Amino acid sequence: MNKRIKEILSWYRSENPGTIKNLYHMLMHGKLGGSGKMVILPVDQGFEHGPARSFAPNPDGYDPSYHVQLAIDAGLNAHAAPLGSIQTIAKEYAGQIPLILKANNSDILNKGSDPIPAITASVKDALRLGCAAIGFTIYPGSSKSKQMYEEIRKIAIEAKSNGLIVVIWSYPRGSGISKKGETAIDVIAYAAQIAAQLGAHMIKVKPPTDHIELEEAKKVYDKYNIPISKLDERIKHIVQRTFNGQRIVIFSGGPAKEKKEILEEIKMINKGGAFGSIIGRNTFQRPRNEALDFLEEILDIYKT
Amino acid sequence: MNKRIKEILSWYRSENPGTIKNLYHMLMHGKLGGSGKMVILPVDQGFEHGPARSFAPNPDGYDPSYHVQLAIDAGLNAHAAPLGSIQTIAKEYAGQIPLILKANNSDILNKGSDPIPAITASVKDALRLGCAAIGFTIYPGSSKSKQMYEEIRKIAIEAKSNGLIVVIWSYPRGSGISKKGETAIDVIAYAAQIAAQLGAHMIKVKPPTDHIELEEAKKVYDKYNIPISKLDERIKHIVQRTFNGQRIVIFSGGPAKEKKEILEEIKMINKGGAFGSIIGRNTFQRPRNEALDFLEEILDIYKT
Amino acid sequence: MNKRIKEILSWYRSENPGTIKNLYHMLMHGKLGGSGKMVILPVDQGFEHGPARSFAPNPDGYDPSYHVQLAIDAGLNAHAAPLGSIQTIAKEYAGQIPLILKANNSDILNKGSDPIPAITASVKDALRLGCAAIGFTIYPGSSKSKQMYEEIRKIAIEAKSNGLIVVIWSYPRGSGISKKGETAIDVIAYAAQIAAQLGAHMIKVKPPTDHIELEEAKKVYDKYNIPISKLDERIKHIVQRTFNGQRIVIFSGGPAKEKKEILEEIKMINKGGAFGSIIGRNTFQRPRNEALDFLEEILDIYKT
Amino acid sequence: MNKRIKEILSWYRSENPGTIKNLYHMLMHGKLGGSGKMVILPVDQGFEHGPARSFAPNPDGYDPSYHVQLAIDAGLNAHAAPLGSIQTIAKEYAGQIPLILKANNSDILNKGSDPIPAITASVKDALRLGCAAIGFTIYPGSSKSKQMYEEIRKIAIEAKSNGLIVVIWSYPRGSGISKKGETAIDVIAYAAQIAAQLGAHMIKVKPPTDHIELEEAKKVYDKYNIPISKLDERIKHIVQRTFNGQRIVIFSGGPAKEKKEILEEIKMINKGGAFGSIIGRNTFQRPRNEALDFLEEILDIYKT
Amino acid sequence: MNKRIKEILSWYRSENPGTIKNLYHMLMHGKLGGSGKMVILPVDQGFEHGPARSFAPNPDGYDPSYHVQLAIDAGLNAHAAPLGSIQTIAKEYAGQIPLILKANNSDILNKGSDPIPAITASVKDALRLGCAAIGFTIYPGSSKSKQMYEEIRKIAIEAKSNGLIVVIWSYPRGSGISKKGETAIDVIAYAAQIAAQLGAHMIKVKPPTDHIELEEAKKVYDKYNIPISKLDERIKHIVQRTFNGQRIVIFSGGPAKEKKEILEEIKMINKGGAFGSIIGRNTFQRPRNEALDFLEEILDIYKT
Repeated sequence: MNKRIKEILSWYRSENPGTIKNLYHMLMHGKLGGSGKMVILPVDQGFEHGPARSFAPNPDGYDPSYHVQLAIDAGLNAHAAPLGSIQTIAKEYAGQIPLILKANNSDILNKGSDPIPAITASVKDALRLGCAAIGFTIYPGSSKSKQMYEEIRKIAIEAKSNGLIVVIWSYPRGSGISKKGETAIDVIAYAAQIAAQLGAHMIKVKPPTDHIELEEAKKVYDKYNIPISKLDERIKHIVQRTFNGQRIVIFSGGPAKEKKEILEEIKMINKGGAFGSIIGRNTFQRPRNEALDFLEEILDIYKT
Repeated sequence: MNKRIKEILSWYRSENPGTIKNLYHMLMHGKLGGSGKMVILPVDQGFEHGPARSFAPNPDGYDPSYHVQLAIDAGLNAHAAPLGSIQTIAKEYAGQIPLILKANNSDILNKGSDPIPAITASVKDALRLGCAAIGFTIYPGSSKSKQMYEEIRKIAIEAKSNGLIVVIWSYPRGSGISKKGETAIDVIAYAAQIAAQLGAHMIKVKPPTDHIELEEAKKVYDKYNIPISKLDERIKHIVQRTFNGQRIVIFSGGPAKEKKEILEEIKMINKGGAFGSIIGRNTFQRPRNEALDFLEEILDIYKT
Repeated sequence: MNKRIKEILSWYRSENPGTIKNLYHMLMHGKLGGSGKMVILPVDQGFEHGPARSFAPNPDGYDPSYHVQLAIDAGLNAHAAPLGSIQTIAKEYAGQIPLILKANNSDILNKGSDPIPAITASVKDALRLGCAAIGFTIYPGSSKSKQMYEEIRKIAIEAKSNGLIVVIWSYPRGSGISKKGETAIDVIAYAAQIAAQLGAHMIKVKPPTDHIELEEAKKVYDKYNIPISKLDERIKHIVQRTFNGQRIVIFSGGPAKEKKEILEEIKMINKGGAFGSIIGRNTFQRPRNEALDFLEEILDIYKT
Repeated sequence: MNKRIKEILSWYRSENPGTIKNLYHMLMHGKLGGSGKMVILPVDQGFEHGPARSFAPNPDGYDPSYHVQLAIDAGLNAHAAPLGSIQTIAKEYAGQIPLILKANNSDILNKGSDPIPAITASVKDALRLGCAAIGFTIYPGSSKSKQMYEEIRKIAIEAKSNGLIVVIWSYPRGSGISKKGETAIDVIAYAAQIAAQLGAHMIKVKPPTDHIELEEAKKVYDKYNIPISKLDERIKHIVQRTFNGQRIVIFSGGPAKEKKEILEEIKMINKGGAFGSIIGRNTFQRPRNEALDFLEEILDIYKT
Repeated sequence: MNKRIKEILSWYRSENPGTIKNLYHMLMHGKLGGSGKMVILPVDQGFEHGPARSFAPNPDGYDPSYHVQLAIDAGLNAHAAPLGSIQTIAKEYAGQIPLILKANNSDILNKGSDPIPAITASVKDALRLGCAAIGFTIYPGSSKSKQMYEEIRKIAIEAKSNGLIVVIWSYPRGSGISKKGETAIDVIAYAAQIAAQLGAHMIKVKPPTDHIELEEAKKVYDKYNIPISKLDERIKHIVQRTFNGQRIVIFSGGPAKEKKEILEEIKMINKGGAFGSIIGRNTFQRPRNEALDFLEEILDIYKT
């Protein structure tokens, strides 16, 4: 085991060996194996945004097998999906790539201003399906955050005692914050901190903008002259604010964009010291060959 | 065991020996060990106020290890933090200082007028992580106080039957009282009483002002001419109202202030007969050496 | 066992022997032991009204031990208090007087128009602390009465199966009735009936006025010319309406009054056939010697 | 995934994906990865035969870490050991080689004629420690076989529902058979069949002799002229009798022997179509370098 | 934390932080604190041999408080006793010395040839009483060893998940071995190995003689010419056989002997690399002052 992997695992020394085993598998898997960096393919958009919106650009994506095959062929570290997809592919692809079972999901058929995902899978599912991790979304800023935090508390303790990794998608949203505030630098930093304090082993957040949402926070950013104008500075900021870099924080890609723009963004994410990317629509909505090439370019960035 | 420690423990004689053991450990630990006084380092501000606001003044504080090391080096009695922080440091610092697991937490991304913290950790967590106590925040004055009181009732009985200490942070807040009323002398006294009646072994409140919030209370304070103009008088008042001094009541430091001002305040708190201070931002937001010197001055006050 | 005690216990013959044992202990305890009458000292005002308002008139009362000692020295039948107080005194005074654990409590920091107490203690607490009974407050007339009735149903069945007595404080209150209606004769009678139907073994109500709150009730009182002009008539009325005298109904004293006035009231309560008084502020807010003399006079009334 | 691995996994298609994942990991791990063959290092002799007898020949073996490091460095498929050993190494070696937790063990301090191992670990242990499989020994031929079969039935169903592999060590022994019968061809075939019928995914037996123990069996072997004179014929016989080759059957090495003798035996085992070897004393009782060379030769046999 | 303590704790890195905390407390307590050595006072002889036989030589010992006070005053690391004793002293001595709750015990009123202790306390007891560890006796060599091993398996997993230490008293006994074999070098080594494999964190055995009980073992000792003629050689042998020194193995003192003889024995035990002594009758059966002097001499040996 190389020094970097040893260092990363040392941050989790209070955890059971089973959890460390799964972290090790994920960190060592794929083309980035052993580098301490990760790229993960998440495909829960069928549930979250509806199937046509998600898969019409590349209809092969209606098939859950398409995605896990793409993740394997591209040499990614892991694949994340909701129960139905995982259940469809788990036996055929058993052991070929670490799987993250998304244990809660939202649809947009009834969202309201303060959404809360439904718990759609359990630790028992993750174990029978051979998953390495449980994924869970929280919406800091929602008036229902208390309920979400308490749900993950209960699931996390069960997951940990059975040797699974806990991954939290921390997406600020809800009546407490503005639309612009959802990706504000102070809010994303806060969201990452909350996920870490809830006991997450890995945390997924969106790349932050230079907007500052909270009045009290603004004063501090100004007073200490915290550099946040460039993306790499902001990424560095988030990583530091998450236990001084001692939690695996990865960044999502967001809505489909120009390839060049994304690569530029990921270069900055990497430069800022992020642990990797979790990138869905920008890959699976392109034709397979294009997606594979694109992912190779992304992996190359993280290899440097 | 000296007379004062014996006396303090006698107030808890209905409790299990396990709880007494943990109280004894906490009372005997650090530079104030055996004096019956305590200074505790609480670091939940990352969750409660956001990471940048809490740790930008002294970026070492982003690392949970920094705080527990500071508490040990300063010779404090205990360190309190949420699940994520405790989980990060529990194995490496096992046994070196009593730990208080903050079992519920609020963030400020969606507060509304009647906030209620989310339960973020359990008694099971406290036991596996080797903690001495469970910490829990209640907001008397909130329209959701019933729910909070019932949550702590349930957690407290489980904690006690497993030999843990129950510490209640009693912070008046919510639609039932004015902003000024949150630190009013009658309200703080009431909040301490409620925490004691809910079965807390240790109670944390804010230093009260001389404002009186409740009409009915005002009549009584006037009629009996209760002295509350000076801080030490008010502290004495709070301690007396908490089972006539038979519960460990400690006082928080509040927002960062001038060093001199705090030391003056703590002198009054000590003079009033408080059991100690729980002081976070005023220490961890200063550079380490400064914080250590400052804490030494605070401990010196309590030693007299 | 004398005939009267035998008769009283016969009303509870469906209950477990454990509950009967505790009823017997309470009925036989103190200076009224064996008379079928009871005087009880309740001290939950620190929680219900705040500590200063409750104990400033006689600061010894800040100490929970003061009250149980007072109840013992005065030769009362039982002492009732919330969890924190009982926890403080239970070990030292174990076995010296029957204890009633108040299992729910309200504070006045956020009341609203339809208050509902928080559940603050459990049957498990009552058992470990050696209590004879669980006390529980309901507010008939509140829009939340369904929730309260269901809470006591759940706690009562657990209490009974563990051999405890169930005492219900039945205090009409809330948006369903007028302020004056809270002590109206028809409402108090109704409140006592509800408590009895909820399975209470002992019921505490306030002495009723001759006001009639409900239109429908008024017609009946008029038609049958029910005598309610004098207090003893009203007490008799309440006792009769509570299973024809086959439930132990006791009456509270209310806010502090002139000694003479209270003694007169208690004479009427006794004349009306009540089972006794539950009297707090009017005793513990007086100096101890005065309180002891006063309680002796009250006991003397019930002895006749 | 190559054709052979696909074929092997297809035999287990009724199992949960989690079990398939763990089988895949074990089949793909080490130098034989992907060949459909396995060599496993089992070290439970400290418990089964006593520490000196097991480790005196090579005292490094007293350290549980020695064995797992040996298995990793030799490129084996898995390492099997009892709870204490696994607990010692699980965190440090997490993820580096599939682990089989031996869940029952015998000592020889009190064997009697009908031994039965004690259950010494649980599925819960296997999950928290990150194991891929549960190992369990049965003694067909013992008068206590009913109890053992029922123990594994209970553990196996729990293991399978949590995605673990079930490995049965099937060792004929006890008052029902002769000493010579313990390795008789008919008895070993029978023992493998019983393990398969009890739901084992992998089965470990000893290489059989050409002795036939059971009268009834003898008639059949004679009548059908089943070839069992050579070891490879006997191995082929065992594999066929275990669901016609559709269960992974591996063979133990037995007591320490001359290196040449063992290699010859393993050649025959491989020739007979076995899935591999589980070989303990013959490797860990030699000096490390010798053991590594020896294991390489064994692996080379299975590669052909 | 010094290097030796860090090294010892590293052997238990798969365990929960709570268990590490208790190990740290025990290793740091008393006059040997920080040395990596331990002396423990066990007093279960009242149960095991009867009270008069145990305490008549020094009648102060009938009082459970006598022993815990002796252990504290002598500066030992821990005190071990059955439920009744612990329950008697736990509150008064809470926190003053780590306690080991003996969770099973035998009496000699009905022993038979294959004794098995009764389980006399639970993990729940240990937690409410504030104990650091659970102690459990097994008798390898008994025909009932299966039952004992399975009992400790169940208790150990509960103890570990609640942060307690598991101490196994491994005493060979029963129909499987001769009387002389109970302390034979091969049998004691085997007994220590079994305890370690059952997941014990600390192991207590008797000092072995140079007798070899098992035929198979004798061959090995002879062949490898293992030095066992002197006690220090035998101790070294036991420690090595217990995970190559990576489990805390301590040695009992056995029946009361001449002081000089014991000190000589302990010198050899220390020289052999043992982690310490657990010594009961030889101390508590002497007058207090004599016992204190004697224990000081023992501690001095371990300090060197």
